Amino acid sequence: MLEAFMLAGASGTRRSRGEPCADILKTVTFPVVGIIGGGQLARMTHEAGIPLGVRFKLLSDTPQDSAAQVVGDVVIGDYRDLETLRAFARGCDVITFDHEHVPTAHLLALEADGVAVRPGPAALVHAQDKGVMRARLDEIGVPCPRHRIVADPADVVRFAEEGMQGGVVGAGSGVVGAGSGVVGAGSGFPVVLKTVRGGYDGKGVWIVGSAEEAGDAFRAGVPVLAEEKVDFVRELAANVVRSPHGQAVAYPVVESIQVNGVCDTVIAPAPGLDGESAALAQRLALTIAKELGVVGHLAVELFETRNDDGTTGLLVNELAMRPHNSGHWTQDGAITSQFANHLRAVLDLPLGDPRPRAKWTVMANVLGGDYPNMYGAFLHCMARDPQLKIHMYGKDVKPGRKVGHVNTYGDDLSEVRARARHAADYLRGTIDE
Amino acid sequence: MLEAFMLAGASGTRRSRGEPCADILKTVTFPVVGIIGGGQLARMTHEAGIPLGVRFKLLSDTPQDSAAQVVGDVVIGDYRDLETLRAFARGCDVITFDHEHVPTAHLLALEADGVAVRPGPAALVHAQDKGVMRARLDEIGVPCPRHRIVADPADVVRFAEEGMQGGVVGAGSGVVGAGSGVVGAGSGFPVVLKTVRGGYDGKGVWIVGSAEEAGDAFRAGVPVLAEEKVDFVRELAANVVRSPHGQAVAYPVVESIQVNGVCDTVIAPAPGLDGESAALAQRLALTIAKELGVVGHLAVELFETRNDDGTTGLLVNELAMRPHNSGHWTQDGAITSQFANHLRAVLDLPLGDPRPRAKWTVMANVLGGDYPNMYGAFLHCMARDPQLKIHMYGKDVKPGRKVGHVNTYGDDLSEVRARARHAADYLRGTIDE
Ligand SMILES: Nc1ncnc2c1ncn2[C@@H]1O[C@H](COP(=O)(O)OP(=O)(O)OP(=O)(O)O)[C@@H](O)[C@H]1O
Ligand SMILES: Nc1ncnc2c1ncn2[C@@H]1O[C@H](COP(=O)(O)OP(=O)(O)OP(=O)(O)O)[C@@H](O)[C@H]1O
Ligand SMILES: [Mg+2]
Ligand SMILES: [Mg+2]
Repeated sequence: MLEAFMLAGASGTRRSRGEPCADILKTVTFPVVGIIGGGQLARMTHEAGIPLGVRFKLLSDTPQDSAAQVVGDVVIGDYRDLETLRAFARGCDVITFDHEHVPTAHLLALEADGVAVRPGPAALVHAQDKGVMRARLDEIGVPCPRHRIVADPADVVRFAEEGMQGGVVGAGSGVVGAGSGVVGAGSGFPVVLKTVRGGYDGKGVWIVGSAEEAGDAFRAGVPVLAEEKVDFVRELAANVVRSPHGQAVAYPVVESIQVNGVCDTVIAPAPGLDGESAALAQRLALTIAKELGVVGHLAVELFETRNDDGTTGLLVNELAMRPHNSGHWTQDGAITSQFANHLRAVLDLPLGDPRPRAKWTVMANVLGGDYPNMYGAFLHCMARDPQLKIHMYGKDVKPGRKVGHVNTYGDDLSEVRARARHAADYLRGTIDE
Repeated sequence: MLEAFMLAGASGTRRSRGEPCADILKTVTFPVVGIIGGGQLARMTHEAGIPLGVRFKLLSDTPQDSAAQVVGDVVIGDYRDLETLRAFARGCDVITFDHEHVPTAHLLALEADGVAVRPGPAALVHAQDKGVMRARLDEIGVPCPRHRIVADPADVVRFAEEGMQGGVVGAGSGVVGAGSGVVGAGSGFPVVLKTVRGGYDGKGVWIVGSAEEAGDAFRAGVPVLAEEKVDFVRELAANVVRSPHGQAVAYPVVESIQVNGVCDTVIAPAPGLDGESAALAQRLALTIAKELGVVGHLAVELFETRNDDGTTGLLVNELAMRPHNSGHWTQDGAITSQFANHLRAVLDLPLGDPRPRAKWTVMANVLGGDYPNMYGAFLHCMARDPQLKIHMYGKDVKPGRKVGHVNTYGDDLSEVRARARHAADYLRGTIDE
């Protein structure tokens, strides 16, 4: 970003040395990355960008946002406003994201302006719209839960009944060879309903047992996707990073444990996952990244199912095209973190080694509890476990809000897991010593 | 730093909820750390502070300084001006440093104002003034090269002659039991001359063979310290971190290789160092930290000597009371980096585990070369070695200037060292592929 840096005024004094040519050569040509969204993902991406020597610009809603507290060059503005986005993009070599909420039309307009948007809108829409995502995954033969868009509660009942007739629609027919999910028995209920846009942390997801219960999902006025309720063994995530020139790396497949629809614990690698299923999950994620033209980090949330013959099946739940909660363990547990590799990808730099540094790494989210000042607990956890890696987001504590996470690693999974659990619970205030 | 945060305006909207008491409790009480100096040490300290959730304020000479590029809350000002320091300190819970150049009188004035300055001026003066440092180390019985303050070139000749009479002054008399250095033979020359203040990267250090050559050292008008030229086997560093309540941790002792007076390579742990000498070096550093009342990271630069009977001797070269180049390997090679532990210490938080994560970690400094744009080389190095950890400082390239460093780690020292060497040389432009 020769121009932006020159504009930033750093060359003024140097030019007066009277060496105009050498001067331009001496200009720092490390690029400027613009991140849209001031949440903890942007905060941790900035942290990972410091050693890369890249410069950051942040578009944040407020100066108090998690990332806005730590980034030097912050623009306060509304990402829903195209002119704000345009002005922001002018100082950047590439634009990437903390969240998936920027309207597709705006991103297309930026691309038309010549801005490098990574991931691009054509890929990103699959992480923004669960309906588009399901349709595209069907097209490329990636196994998904049985699903279709439903019009109203009566249509949900029809969807449930369709499931009783064999559940062949969409499930288990992937060319990549993953097994099919277990289809809901009896009435075809429960059914999972999801607003196709705007959901996160389980908001926008309903598990319904009848037409009556289905009403809520339609009230937002957003199209609703119905899915069979998969009887999964556990949830996994296959995380990969892909760069514009097509290099890709795959992180070890992890187990992701949700509590009340929110990610609670991630174990890397997923304990007891057979090598074949792990490789299949990585291949699935790499295929999706390639077919959808993803640039940057792609998290593929998966359901692990047990087929009738005892073999393992995999179904894709959803996609995220940015650093993801299921990859936070990489900060302390992998040679290259998801944040560093996301940046390397969006800058089209060669990717870093995704392999683990420890036998086991466990991440536990720190949720806000009733007691708002965490500093005392923070101190206690550090004293109790000098190896603990705490990552705080600088956010005010609100009950249930993600305000940080902890990573632990080591050779003994139950010990590593207990340490992470203890720290997360203690910080939340769920346990005393 | 309740007050500073409230002033920052975050509580305005919350107060309107009409819960004045709960409101104050909900205020983020994570502290604000003020760093004086905008160099790469402040940059990397900021990076390490992000996961700790602490807030940063930076006092920097210019907005282009290494740390000023990445920190959110930057004050541009002169650290030699007391009123600037006072205004800066008002927004901070604690003040720490990127460099050792803040005048002692100013730090004493800040302390008198009630500011927490860590390390405090009484400790810091030993890292600022090599004369004060030598006098104090003699007092507490820490082995140093033979030394004394010299008045003029004729006095340097006398110092050299004193060395021929047995070299007992100051050398090898440490109560902690380290061996004595090898004293210069013949004329007593060469002698090492150092300005007691203001030196860095070998600037302010002269090795002189005669009275004539001694002239330069006196021209700055700063008192000059003469030292025997130690015939060392190699240079080591013993790095420790100490907190106000007296907790301390010791990193593995490292070998530090200087080229032209500038740190070039650091190997952790120091290869072939016997356990007894390593423990002695750590004990020396812990003793110094305690006796001098150091808070934060203390680097003790050491000379390893070979005694006549073949045993290993240790002499202290100098002290640094801040994160130090000999500790950069800890970012990727230790459980807790020197930067994180420095912050934990100045905040009086429990310290993190200093133990290594790999059998060998090697750090090589990236110096500026003749070719000013490093980005192409940067890309090449990433592609060649996906495990390489590059740390760039965002500084313009000038020949010989430290603009970054690389860390490598693994089980095979010669391979780990070769990878670091290659990357540093390639980035500098010394080698092609
Ligand atoms: N078809 C399904 N069958 C069974 N459980 C499901 C199904 N779909 C979703 N879930 C459960 O609900 C959780 C949240 O669903 P989903 O990931 O689609 O929503 P979200 O709000 O986008 O979540 P987030 O963005 O936090 O990952 C899943 O992690 C899973 O536990
Ligand atoms: N007494 C001595 N005998 C032999 N060599 C010495 C002696 N003192 C210093 N040196 C050499 O000169 C180098 C620089 O000296 P010193 O560390 O005192 O200076 P400096 O400018 O403060 O360096 P820096 O701050 O970069 O560590 C040492 O690392 C060592 O290689
Ligand atoms: Mg999800
Ligand atoms: Mg030195």
